[in-house]
Amino acid sequence: MTETPNNSAVVPPAEPGADLEQLKAQVAENWDKFLRATADFDNYRKRVAREREELGRMTRESVIGALLPSLDNLERALDHSAAGTALHEGLLQVQKQFARTLGEFGLVEIIAKPGDQFDANLHEAVSQIESADQPDNAVIEQLQSAYKLGDRLLRPARVVVSKGAPPAA
Amino acid sequence: MTETPNNSAVVPPAEPGADLEQLKAQVAENWDKFLRATADFDNYRKRVAREREELGRMTRESVIGALLPSLDNLERALDHSAAGTALHEGLLQVQKQFARTLGEFGLVEIIAKPGDQFDANLHEAVSQIESADQPDNAVIEQLQSAYKLGDRLLRPARVVVSKGAPPAA
Repeated sequence: MTETPNNSAVVPPAEPGADLEQLKAQVAENWDKFLRATADFDNYRKRVAREREELGRMTRESVIGALLPSLDNLERALDHSAAGTALHEGLLQVQKQFARTLGEFGLVEIIAKPGDQFDANLHEAVSQIESADQPDNAVIEQLQSAYKLGDRLLRPARVVVSKGAPPAA
Repeated sequence: MTETPNNSAVVPPAEPGADLEQLKAQVAENWDKFLRATADFDNYRKRVAREREELGRMTRESVIGALLPSLDNLERALDHSAAGTALHEGLLQVQKQFARTLGEFGLVEIIAKPGDQFDANLHEAVSQIESADQPDNAVIEQLQSAYKLGDRLLRPARVVVSKGAPPAA
């Protein structure tokens, strides 16, 4: 039994002239091949199911992540339009609709409020300033919101923090 | 050979006391099982590769399709802001950035121009009006652009067409 049959096999199922023991060995070998092939198939099927979920998530992350600067800039335009004008109201509707649509795909804004403890999992400190009324490593001001997609951080909030010793690891 | 071994098989590879002919048959049967299992696996692998591409496309279509109303409304807000103002320029930047980002994922705007022949693959006629200077079934006005994602129509253009006989099928 030196030949290894492959898938496009021209190898006959049983070799001519084989004796009882050789045939028994070949029965066992072919059976093992079958079992291994079905086990490989099962494992592949499980991996594919995980990858399928992962792929949908990654595609959403890539599209929605790429749109966050547009959302930021829309909010900036909104801040610069005079409240009460028709244009401001129109922009507000656009911004709400945009955020709501992204929210339906799992986007969640996380706002860092002044006084929040700095959290390296959510915040990126862009500068530190001394503060008389804030403890060390507190958020002084948020420059840009954090966003999560589902339970994954899409981008951290950009914050200014109060000066002090670095937070304990 | 009445038993059909399955994957969790307790069936022995070769039945005790089997004679030469029975063993040959069992060698052949196990070999066939192996071939069928690998063929199934191959087919599944090919199907998965197609589905993977399809899934990425469908996810992009669903996210980007859902954002088209935001893009429309942003363009509407832009049309309502006074040209030359800082706000108008700001909105223009937001709209360009938004459209460019979606364009990077394959979104293409298709504009129906007045005089274009009505095309059921690209246009949705929302009304028909009589026109002295347009042939039958020509686009009079576009109310909303069509968008394609890659080579697939994401939504048709909404158009007003000139009155006349229905186009030949």
